[in-house]
Amino acid sequence: MKITQRVRKMLSYYESDSPGTKTNLARILMQGRLGGSGKLVILPVDQGFEHGPARSFAINPDAYDPHYHWQLAIDAGLSAFASPLGMIEAGADSFAGAIPTILKVNSSSSHAMTKDQAVTATVKDALRLGCAAIGFTIYPGSDHQFEMIEELRELALEAKSHGLAVVVWSYPRGGNLSKEGETALDVTAYAAHKAALLGAHIIKVKPPTAHLEQAEAAKVYGLENIPATTLSARIAHIVQSSFAGKRIVIFSGGAAKGLEGLYDEIRAIRDGGGFGSIIGRNTFQRPREDALVMLNNIIKIYQNKA
Amino acid sequence: MKITQRVRKMLSYYESDSPGTKTNLARILMQGRLGGSGKLVILPVDQGFEHGPARSFAINPDAYDPHYHWQLAIDAGLSAFASPLGMIEAGADSFAGAIPTILKVNSSSSHAMTKDQAVTATVKDALRLGCAAIGFTIYPGSDHQFEMIEELRELALEAKSHGLAVVVWSYPRGGNLSKEGETALDVTAYAAHKAALLGAHIIKVKPPTAHLEQAEAAKVYGLENIPATTLSARIAHIVQSSFAGKRIVIFSGGAAKGLEGLYDEIRAIRDGGGFGSIIGRNTFQRPREDALVMLNNIIKIYQNKA
Amino acid sequence: MKITQRVRKMLSYYESDSPGTKTNLARILMQGRLGGSGKLVILPVDQGFEHGPARSFAINPDAYDPHYHWQLAIDAGLSAFASPLGMIEAGADSFAGAIPTILKVNSSSSHAMTKDQAVTATVKDALRLGCAAIGFTIYPGSDHQFEMIEELRELALEAKSHGLAVVVWSYPRGGNLSKEGETALDVTAYAAHKAALLGAHIIKVKPPTAHLEQAEAAKVYGLENIPATTLSARIAHIVQSSFAGKRIVIFSGGAAKGLEGLYDEIRAIRDGGGFGSIIGRNTFQRPREDALVMLNNIIKIYQNKA
Amino acid sequence: MKITQRVRKMLSYYESDSPGTKTNLARILMQGRLGGSGKLVILPVDQGFEHGPARSFAINPDAYDPHYHWQLAIDAGLSAFASPLGMIEAGADSFAGAIPTILKVNSSSSHAMTKDQAVTATVKDALRLGCAAIGFTIYPGSDHQFEMIEELRELALEAKSHGLAVVVWSYPRGGNLSKEGETALDVTAYAAHKAALLGAHIIKVKPPTAHLEQAEAAKVYGLENIPATTLSARIAHIVQSSFAGKRIVIFSGGAAKGLEGLYDEIRAIRDGGGFGSIIGRNTFQRPREDALVMLNNIIKIYQNKA
Amino acid sequence: MKITQRVRKMLSYYESDSPGTKTNLARILMQGRLGGSGKLVILPVDQGFEHGPARSFAINPDAYDPHYHWQLAIDAGLSAFASPLGMIEAGADSFAGAIPTILKVNSSSSHAMTKDQAVTATVKDALRLGCAAIGFTIYPGSDHQFEMIEELRELALEAKSHGLAVVVWSYPRGGNLSKEGETALDVTAYAAHKAALLGAHIIKVKPPTAHLEQAEAAKVYGLENIPATTLSARIAHIVQSSFAGKRIVIFSGGAAKGLEGLYDEIRAIRDGGGFGSIIGRNTFQRPREDALVMLNNIIKIYQNKA
Repeated sequence: MKITQRVRKMLSYYESDSPGTKTNLARILMQGRLGGSGKLVILPVDQGFEHGPARSFAINPDAYDPHYHWQLAIDAGLSAFASPLGMIEAGADSFAGAIPTILKVNSSSSHAMTKDQAVTATVKDALRLGCAAIGFTIYPGSDHQFEMIEELRELALEAKSHGLAVVVWSYPRGGNLSKEGETALDVTAYAAHKAALLGAHIIKVKPPTAHLEQAEAAKVYGLENIPATTLSARIAHIVQSSFAGKRIVIFSGGAAKGLEGLYDEIRAIRDGGGFGSIIGRNTFQRPREDALVMLNNIIKIYQNKA
Repeated sequence: MKITQRVRKMLSYYESDSPGTKTNLARILMQGRLGGSGKLVILPVDQGFEHGPARSFAINPDAYDPHYHWQLAIDAGLSAFASPLGMIEAGADSFAGAIPTILKVNSSSSHAMTKDQAVTATVKDALRLGCAAIGFTIYPGSDHQFEMIEELRELALEAKSHGLAVVVWSYPRGGNLSKEGETALDVTAYAAHKAALLGAHIIKVKPPTAHLEQAEAAKVYGLENIPATTLSARIAHIVQSSFAGKRIVIFSGGAAKGLEGLYDEIRAIRDGGGFGSIIGRNTFQRPREDALVMLNNIIKIYQNKA
Repeated sequence: MKITQRVRKMLSYYESDSPGTKTNLARILMQGRLGGSGKLVILPVDQGFEHGPARSFAINPDAYDPHYHWQLAIDAGLSAFASPLGMIEAGADSFAGAIPTILKVNSSSSHAMTKDQAVTATVKDALRLGCAAIGFTIYPGSDHQFEMIEELRELALEAKSHGLAVVVWSYPRGGNLSKEGETALDVTAYAAHKAALLGAHIIKVKPPTAHLEQAEAAKVYGLENIPATTLSARIAHIVQSSFAGKRIVIFSGGAAKGLEGLYDEIRAIRDGGGFGSIIGRNTFQRPREDALVMLNNIIKIYQNKA
Repeated sequence: MKITQRVRKMLSYYESDSPGTKTNLARILMQGRLGGSGKLVILPVDQGFEHGPARSFAINPDAYDPHYHWQLAIDAGLSAFASPLGMIEAGADSFAGAIPTILKVNSSSSHAMTKDQAVTATVKDALRLGCAAIGFTIYPGSDHQFEMIEELRELALEAKSHGLAVVVWSYPRGGNLSKEGETALDVTAYAAHKAALLGAHIIKVKPPTAHLEQAEAAKVYGLENIPATTLSARIAHIVQSSFAGKRIVIFSGGAAKGLEGLYDEIRAIRDGGGFGSIIGRNTFQRPREDALVMLNNIIKIYQNKA
Repeated sequence: MKITQRVRKMLSYYESDSPGTKTNLARILMQGRLGGSGKLVILPVDQGFEHGPARSFAINPDAYDPHYHWQLAIDAGLSAFASPLGMIEAGADSFAGAIPTILKVNSSSSHAMTKDQAVTATVKDALRLGCAAIGFTIYPGSDHQFEMIEELRELALEAKSHGLAVVVWSYPRGGNLSKEGETALDVTAYAAHKAALLGAHIIKVKPPTAHLEQAEAAKVYGLENIPATTLSARIAHIVQSSFAGKRIVIFSGGAAKGLEGLYDEIRAIRDGGGFGSIIGRNTFQRPREDALVMLNNIIKIYQNKA
């Protein structure tokens, strides 16, 4: 496989990483229909841990079977498949080598009464299962953020020393953040920057709103006239906040909306210089054929064909 | 011993496990009178830790002796014997190789005022005692669930790397769960799914009632018309929630009821596609001859002969 | 030394233990004037940690010197000497090989405001000091019981893997136990059984009263007519609760009483099938000659000569 | 490179350190335009973690790019560059050997509600990234100070045993300190002394005010007539409190002020015998050319040329 | 160096210790002007950590320099020098072999709001710095005492296994102790005995007052007529409580008093059989020449010449 110029450029920004980690980043960046373009679309399936199986899969019962998701990610030509331990274990042999996997090593639960996550898997698990990366969620703002960051430090160092990549879901919540503040522009930029400083290779945040949460920050956004009215401008600010575009930052689907709304959001991510999307429920909570059509449309947007 | 087609199929679902772990799963699935059928009945004796010796054994004083339980499980042709450290130590040599054992590595206590369990044994203990698996209880919903899950992560990884199987007792309790909610259909399905995502090979839950606990979930159960009126339909939903039947899920005896009520429950487990039962107090809290008759009847139900 | 039939029988119950651990159990069971009889009397000296030196030794100032206790235990023909780190260190060389020692590895303090103990020594200490066993206290009922049990799990596994025996002091206290409940029959039986399930070789409890503490348990004691009026009957129930007599269970001296009261209590322990006594303050808080007379009388009771 | 007499003298005070650690101290002390003079100026860039990217870099957007800071520190002829993991990773290969780096291994966050910091990197990270030192912040006064000190103990021992130097940011806050007390003379001297006792090679504190916070200390300052009216006198007291000048103590820029105010402060640091400055926001929150002019002026002050 | 009969006798009490540890005890007992006499005087300099530098050294500014203390201890002919990590590091090479050192591995702070200490150094530090012993403070009575004891257990075992000696500062405080109770006779005896049971080689307590704190203990002191009116009688009781004189117990200077008061106290320590003194502030908070005179007088008292 010939690595494209674009991907070589992106890999060059990870200048302190080992060839092992760069190989795994390249596996993700060269995979599927967006392979080589510098854009990526990832399928995450961890909603079963967070909301239970019925809320995740009852609308499309084929999705109770772990193989369903692997096959869908492969057939849609996606870049990677991310999921907790059990779901990766359930397909790692059948689909060995077919698509890069990201082992999500911590998870939350709708049962939980605390803004924390349980660490449910290890780097050793990722290695025995042939994963390309580990995925870890931090909650900037939570009272538990320091613990989570320290767990990430250990797991990230171990992952890197074994040639794996590190994907960080950076989801502000808890502490004195308002609900609206969790997706505020300043808070999202801060979350992305923090993940970059913690050594993440790929950063996942939510598309930011124009809201500004922290008074000290709001003052700066006004003084410096940071563009914030369009989503693409806000995306550009998040990319800038991630080491001036030297770290891959991707975006989740955000709040429920129609397909056209989703496509518009993807276009804004693309136009703002975002590196791609991570789309879970929107994918597996509709019939397989509809999901394939939707993912095809999303990929075309990232290919500048839609 | 020739492994049956049915058992080979079941083992194939554990596709990321080592031959060592599959061998131990096969030892359980090929043991006793249900050996090879894909069904299993396990004798657990951990009530002494949870309720004290008199409440467990005074009604049938022979049961104070650990050997009593080993012999009963063997004579009844059961699939495995599960118990805490001391009771396994007390028979591991006399009955070496006679029946697969599951070392229950955490235990609760009626003295305890917190929804947690103490980790009372290790994988090293399971290995030195010749066990086929470790058993671990989690309390989804408890304030302690994240700690318990993280203990399980370490123990499960160590068990798998030494070729042992992992049995998870998933018992929702604590947090904001109502008493009725502990056996609700949505909560039980969630508990089984969470155990599967955590990498359990065998999952133990309680037979669910038709109650729905979580408002968000209840909405989905209504919208999607998930069948819930008969126990066998509910069992089928639990099996589906355990990776579409790719993980072995077994059921405890549930609340006290007459023997006919018990047999009806077993029939519903069987008809819903459940993989078997784990029956403790109902077994050792009656005279040995009565227990053997009862277990014979249960096995016949799983053999479709009753 | 020829091991008696009785001791060989007792050792056979520890069927999963290594020859190393059985050797150390045999050292204790073959030591002193009760050696070979299956009975044992142990001298524990840890009151200095719990109550301070003056309350322990001022009444008999020779006892401030660690050697005093070693010599007394040897001269009285006892089975073993148990004490915290410093006191064992102070005599381990002078009395090397003269009497088996039990290193008490956790201790409480009258200064402490919590129902917990500090772990004050390790298995490595026990090994370098030539001890036959470690001793560990758990407080079933305490809010700290799970932590204590988990400390015991680690220490017991390490002790067994190095050929040492494990003695567990099981003292219910804390939580919602009443003061009277700490020596209740049901609670004591539960404490002994829990220690057995945790893998103890020798269990130490207090002689139980006829009081029943837990409502659920009291119901069972009534229904099943468990004999509880005489101390010897209650002792028999504790022995039964310790794996039907397959684990050595010994008893402390209980509350202050006259010597005749003490001898009567020893007779009840003997008649109920108890394995012996552990007698601290009654021993060293009287002049050496009186103590030797008292211990001689106790040994004669266990020899069925008094 | 010939090490100057002044630097050899300074290295001699670190008499228990290995040649490896002395080599890394020498790398910092011999670097840049102040190399060999015994003075040093360090560029720290960790504001992004503490205040978010916009508050740190929006005023000078080139600074979003990690390379900007490396290049600025090199071009200005500074002594070292200090930053958290991700920013060091982003330039460690491009600028390998060009300037000594200090890996800041813990960081705070304006989101945090507790006076603590998260440990975000390790000594292993510092080694793989070619750093000369680790940097660690303690908060004397905080309820978390003991934990932070114990984290520092482990990291400092590991750093020293691998030939790295240890830089301690000693920032009093929390506990019962008043806001004014955080920069009080007595509190700052205490903070510097504590860092020295903890084994720091380089100590960073804030320039102290004349305020005295602790009543017991204030009494002594009065009795002993410790000079405190001029900043240079206060700096001299901090240097004295750092093992009579045998530990390198440097000062941050302090509160916002005009450039002339800053230069006066630098002169006072110099005149009081301070070893240098660590200047972050004042550097990167102005255009590159202005920053270079400012740093040139600061360096001239330390060279006694201004 | 020929070890005296007196020191050989004292070493013989540490009968379970390795030749390595005995060698280090001998280094201390044979050092300086009291060398060989069985008495010892130690200079501790850790007040800077607990009270800050000005309160410790401003009265005698030469004392800001770590070498001052090393030189003073050597010139006065003392037995050992005890200090936290940084101060030992600052002189370990210049004074290598000149005087035995005790690395104080935990320290408190006047900033702290909790009755605890931070562990600031390790056994590995003590070894690389050529120390003869580690020093550790426990606070019997504090809510943190169990944690501190468990830290001591680990450090003491590691120290002994590397041939170092262990010095325990046993300072009752916290919990429900009254201020007066911290130096009560019963509480001090308890503190010394606890340190002995924890395996300390040298125990440091404060000279006890005649106050009795704990009601249960006071009863015994009355009943047994334990002499308590003179300080020398109280010292004798502390020595007795330390394994009947088989453990070295030394005393701090106690509350501020004139030199004559101090000398009287030293005479009482000597007459009560105490092993020596540990004198910090009284030493370095006066001019060097005065301090040498004072230490000369103290040594003469211990030599029975004053």
